[in-house]
Amino acid sequence: MKLSMMYSYLNTDLALIEKELETTIQGEHPVLKQAGLHLLQSGGKRLRPVFVLLGGKFGNYDIHVIKNVAVALELIHTASLVHDDVIDDADIRRGKPTIKAKWDNKIAMYAGDYILGSSLEIITRLENPLLHKILSNAIVEVCLGEIEQIKDKYDFDQNLRTYLRRIKRKTALLIAVSCQLGAIAADVPEETHKKLFLFGYYVGMAFQITDDILDFTGTEAQLGKPAGSDLLQGNITLPVLYAMQNKYLKEQIIQVSELTTPEEINSLITSIKQSNAIMHSEMISNRYLAKAYKVLDELPPVRARNTLSSIAKYIGKRKY
Amino acid sequence: MKLSMMYSYLNTDLALIEKELETTIQGEHPVLKQAGLHLLQSGGKRLRPVFVLLGGKFGNYDIHVIKNVAVALELIHTASLVHDDVIDDADIRRGKPTIKAKWDNKIAMYAGDYILGSSLEIITRLENPLLHKILSNAIVEVCLGEIEQIKDKYDFDQNLRTYLRRIKRKTALLIAVSCQLGAIAADVPEETHKKLFLFGYYVGMAFQITDDILDFTGTEAQLGKPAGSDLLQGNITLPVLYAMQNKYLKEQIIQVSELTTPEEINSLITSIKQSNAIMHSEMISNRYLAKAYKVLDELPPVRARNTLSSIAKYIGKRKY
Repeated sequence: MKLSMMYSYLNTDLALIEKELETTIQGEHPVLKQAGLHLLQSGGKRLRPVFVLLGGKFGNYDIHVIKNVAVALELIHTASLVHDDVIDDADIRRGKPTIKAKWDNKIAMYAGDYILGSSLEIITRLENPLLHKILSNAIVEVCLGEIEQIKDKYDFDQNLRTYLRRIKRKTALLIAVSCQLGAIAADVPEETHKKLFLFGYYVGMAFQITDDILDFTGTEAQLGKPAGSDLLQGNITLPVLYAMQNKYLKEQIIQVSELTTPEEINSLITSIKQSNAIMHSEMISNRYLAKAYKVLDELPPVRARNTLSSIAKYIGKRKY
Repeated sequence: MKLSMMYSYLNTDLALIEKELETTIQGEHPVLKQAGLHLLQSGGKRLRPVFVLLGGKFGNYDIHVIKNVAVALELIHTASLVHDDVIDDADIRRGKPTIKAKWDNKIAMYAGDYILGSSLEIITRLENPLLHKILSNAIVEVCLGEIEQIKDKYDFDQNLRTYLRRIKRKTALLIAVSCQLGAIAADVPEETHKKLFLFGYYVGMAFQITDDILDFTGTEAQLGKPAGSDLLQGNITLPVLYAMQNKYLKEQIIQVSELTTPEEINSLITSIKQSNAIMHSEMISNRYLAKAYKVLDELPPVRARNTLSSIAKYIGKRKY
């Protein structure tokens, strides 16, 4: 079953959100096209708006209220994608960034800031201080996650705890907050919206771990980039941490640097896939999913609960 | 009279704000040092917090409430300085940005995001949706101002309107919002906080125009950078727009590009200074200051009103 089939009953509402996203981004400012591109590229998955809407289904669901939260969360996600691209895309000529590249990068940076600002502006429509409190905290944590990820590149002296904290900040928190803020905007009682936060957090962790596993097990066609890209870029993910428990593999892994060739990485990936690292990583992912199911059991038995359960199941089994 | 003497009665409160700024930035994250540096470098001027506090003096001034607004505004200003530095500082080797330069730039970018997020987190302490509404709108406008400034570089086909809109977004708005939000946090009635906004807007416009004049009339020692830096970097400011009304000067100005040498710029600066451009620019600045004084006359006669008047006067006369 395709992911989008699980929540096809939300299609009308998702179409409305799509339209508002386009209006916000493209609007009057042609320079924001680059940012808009990201929105289009990330396709119709719109995982965060889906979680917002499903969170809202546990309360007084009014799409004209909830949509603002959904749009804001997707915009924050987009802003982080836009900022992630700054510098990497830098156009270099004769040893110096061209003025044009410098401008484009700076514009991309301010476009990211603009999108973040717009998302906050949209949230103010609800006049609910709690939304701002949770959201601004999430923004701060996401930034810290990004800073840690950059700082920890090619640092092989990491442990499970470092990794989990990083993916919590980088991925899980924004999914958790999506579920929770949707619920808050629908006046869901605190006990329930906190559980929805927890569900989102567990699913988000499983989602990122699965992503990190797929970077090894997926094909280039499935991933849209060569397998092992994370390791080549110095991102030490869960499978790498487990692989390093093997002394022979560890010796090879800690040699990886920005000078490593794709051929060398390929041979290393094969070795890591043949180790227990993938299996161990899947176990951790499954443990998070089990916690997510457990939280669901404590939630009221509305239709959205089944949908959230299907999504969790899908994440555990997805191949790309 | 030195600027800081005009509001020396705020010193205790400003010291408290300084301490909170340090705690927020430096805190637990050593990677945020670069950002902290900006805070220290910008010295003790703290114009935005001063405006926040003075705005608050028109109402129920409680430093433990107001300080949050002051800290948030200074942090937003700092975030914009940090982002302004990204890419310009890029360290290039062998035709490619070094991994370290790429990291540092990315960290600077996320540090800016982090500071912005922190400022929003601090504002949530007041649980006042109106603060968020005004602030998020200001953030969006500042970003648009930055994007316009980048886009308009070396574009000599600009007019007064383009320039004024850009400096409004880039500078005046955040000063206007500082005055207004300080007042709102002190429960000042709408009529008054809107006037404080207007005062800050007029003063902010005069402030930026004066800055743009000083870029021509100031010495390198006064400015901390060579005179004419704006023009060399392609920023078309008010004196340049007026100078271009002279056909002979226009011919020279439109030749300026990223290849222009400092020597060529120096000779051009001398010509611009000898034209009427500086006088015309000062007239516009004075016109904004006159409007600022006029708004002050409509405000209640509290001590802060005199201080605001002194600050406006200072801005009109400052030499660096």
